[in-house]
Amino acid sequence: MATLADARSVEAAVLELKQLLGSRASDAAAIRDHHSHGESYHPPALPDVVCLPHTTDEVASILRVSAAHQIPVVPFGAGTSLEGHVHAVRGGITIDLREMKTILRIGVEDLDATVQAGVTRVQLNKALGETGLMFSVDPGADATMGGMASTRAAGTTTVRYGTMRENVLGLTVVLADGRVIRTGSRARKSAAGYDLTRLFVGAEGTLGVIADVTVRLHPVPEAVAAAVCAFDSMAGAVATVVALIQLGIPVARLELLDEVQMDAVNRYSKTDYPVAPTLLFEFHSDSRPHVEEQAQAVEALATEHGGHRFEWETRLEDRERLWLARHQAMYAALALRPGARAWTTDVCVPISRLAECITETHADNAGAPFPIALVGHAGDGNFHLNYLIDPSSQAEIDHARRINDRLVMRALAMGGTCTGEHGIGYGKMKFLELEHGPAAVEVMRALKRALDPDNRMNPGKMVLI
Amino acid sequence: MATLADARSVEAAVLELKQLLGSRASDAAAIRDHHSHGESYHPPALPDVVCLPHTTDEVASILRVSAAHQIPVVPFGAGTSLEGHVHAVRGGITIDLREMKTILRIGVEDLDATVQAGVTRVQLNKALGETGLMFSVDPGADATMGGMASTRAAGTTTVRYGTMRENVLGLTVVLADGRVIRTGSRARKSAAGYDLTRLFVGAEGTLGVIADVTVRLHPVPEAVAAAVCAFDSMAGAVATVVALIQLGIPVARLELLDEVQMDAVNRYSKTDYPVAPTLLFEFHSDSRPHVEEQAQAVEALATEHGGHRFEWETRLEDRERLWLARHQAMYAALALRPGARAWTTDVCVPISRLAECITETHADNAGAPFPIALVGHAGDGNFHLNYLIDPSSQAEIDHARRINDRLVMRALAMGGTCTGEHGIGYGKMKFLELEHGPAAVEVMRALKRALDPDNRMNPGKMVLI
Repeated sequence: MATLADARSVEAAVLELKQLLGSRASDAAAIRDHHSHGESYHPPALPDVVCLPHTTDEVASILRVSAAHQIPVVPFGAGTSLEGHVHAVRGGITIDLREMKTILRIGVEDLDATVQAGVTRVQLNKALGETGLMFSVDPGADATMGGMASTRAAGTTTVRYGTMRENVLGLTVVLADGRVIRTGSRARKSAAGYDLTRLFVGAEGTLGVIADVTVRLHPVPEAVAAAVCAFDSMAGAVATVVALIQLGIPVARLELLDEVQMDAVNRYSKTDYPVAPTLLFEFHSDSRPHVEEQAQAVEALATEHGGHRFEWETRLEDRERLWLARHQAMYAALALRPGARAWTTDVCVPISRLAECITETHADNAGAPFPIALVGHAGDGNFHLNYLIDPSSQAEIDHARRINDRLVMRALAMGGTCTGEHGIGYGKMKFLELEHGPAAVEVMRALKRALDPDNRMNPGKMVLI
Repeated sequence: MATLADARSVEAAVLELKQLLGSRASDAAAIRDHHSHGESYHPPALPDVVCLPHTTDEVASILRVSAAHQIPVVPFGAGTSLEGHVHAVRGGITIDLREMKTILRIGVEDLDATVQAGVTRVQLNKALGETGLMFSVDPGADATMGGMASTRAAGTTTVRYGTMRENVLGLTVVLADGRVIRTGSRARKSAAGYDLTRLFVGAEGTLGVIADVTVRLHPVPEAVAAAVCAFDSMAGAVATVVALIQLGIPVARLELLDEVQMDAVNRYSKTDYPVAPTLLFEFHSDSRPHVEEQAQAVEALATEHGGHRFEWETRLEDRERLWLARHQAMYAALALRPGARAWTTDVCVPISRLAECITETHADNAGAPFPIALVGHAGDGNFHLNYLIDPSSQAEIDHARRINDRLVMRALAMGGTCTGEHGIGYGKMKFLELEHGPAAVEVMRALKRALDPDNRMNPGKMVLI
């Protein structure tokens, strides 16, 4: 069991890291403080030293220093984690990968790209420019590709294009002892050996450090249409979602917001959408008439289920405004209560249970001492509540914990998961065994022990060994 | 390291298995012989005893007998493996899962189903009947769902709907010591812990025995069209494939056959297609006009690249005849040379290299002492050659090995994989390290040791520990 490294080992490691990286290894208080937290409510935890490598070789050298001195390593990307993944809860070396930001290769013919781990999703999409291709996974934050791979991130387009699990073709990973492996290949599919790519995708840096990522790209659709529709009730909005998924309408985005969140969006983004349960849609096709057909079918379904003010956003700038407002939902919710921090929930359930899950949750949340806003990837059965808590109030934190615990138990009882896309970090460790059972978690521990016997890789997260 | 179990241990294990399963545990010569091989050229290898469990609990009991007596276990499905996966190369217990053929649950609202491992893909699709849903993965054989999961199988619809990797939502797996775990959940996505589902998908029974499988279903498309088009040249056919993938035309099937294979199909299926490089297409949509648009776009692309006699198969029976002929391609090829066995290759390359790979391979194959037929999932960059060898001729086997070795090295040099969908088994073990490098294969060995420390789970396959 790794505990905090002793002071002498840390001192020796810091010296070696400074020799290796010069000013790109720093134990200055401000740098350590900046790397002590993500965007969540969890209390900060300082690393002893922060390294900013430029190459896979430098990452490997850092891991060898970690091995020599038995010092923990925490990978750090954009710092937008919501479950405490980047908190250095046992001190040690934080590897900030944001200076590994080179786009190594764009394969226009093969619809793929290889990027260093610190490249962000917006940076990659900008670089794709006129290629006619796009990278689809879009969490709210402008996260790094390494961080997105590590947390198995998803986003608004997952209903059509999948999560990082489906969009990562291969990885370069630095192992605990500094060895470097390449997983996967540039082939679209392979049955050659254990699926190491999928083992490291979602492993949250607990098995190795991702140094570069090869991802699938998708053709920018020839035709796009977006729409907003307010509903009389949450139940009607969800029923529309279920009906359109079952009809096989290939919707590209299908987002649900409740009235609290719509109010927050209007205030933050200076929009004037109705303050009501709302669905945001986007339709993609290689064909303009097909987009129009999809849209008409969905408008009819929505109207049938109490949708009104179905509004088309046909111009590019209107669409961009719509999705920017959606991506800023968490920041908009935070602005409802200045000084608040967001505790963001992340359950995902089979879509047949989504309406029931949301209804029961709304009832359970009545009377909470803080505002709660809902935003969800309804087509995947995944929704987030932002509990806007006063971080100095233990009573609010305790209340948030109680209603989140009940929310997770509700989702698990419905065949769902405690986290659709944010990951376990250390915030959700207590749910892992409730979700998967003790034997499956013991298998996870066996994998962790096999690849990280010293327990130096982001220790204290995911599973304890 | 496991070697053949000693005779006394085997005898004791057989006795216990007969007590457990009665006549469903058999060491009769005919039963053992039937379970000594798949459909490939590899020499048969007899198990000591064959068990036919009905439940997960029975599988767990068999594994406990294996553990007590240190006897290897080989899972067996439809017996259609092409790389020797089911050959009991170290003797032991073959677990034939074909009597575990219950469809446990069909989730019409959630587009998913849970089936025992011995359910076949055709059985599942029949059971889906009038639900409006389909299971998409379709290897040539009517394989079992457990076998397909274990080899990470794919098929003609992978270009649109993915492989088993994308279509398995969760598994029940019996571990080496008889513990039972459930992986994944019924949620469409999850970031909760290591991706155990993807670890067992493609593990070929070397880490545990899959007892049931939860899969994604897809809506049966509202509109379907299929077409056949013969080309002047292989290069023109492949150029058509590359162009349509890059345009983002969401083709559902995109199969390539060479002239030898088309001749075989005509003879075997009593068809009269032109004997020329040929593409088979299928288009799916929720919209009839959209299918017609796709088809017209592709017909124009094909014509531009030397396609002629573009023929539409619009009636359901014509389409079924077309795809049945495609699925029987290997059997058709075998019929070209009575008494032959097929050695089936399986490389997959980035589609930008597909034309080059096929051209170089055709040149390298000239003068082979046996017929060679090509059939491929061109949209994925995956193609198969069937070497129709005389299994009694060592010279032919040696020639096949040489040209297959060169084919694999060519594919690896192009960034591809030695196996797109058939798996490693024991036929491709020598390529694993060439493809992934020694450090990655060492990681695979560490995983194997962690979950199967006695090396009893399908030993002698995938990786040696």
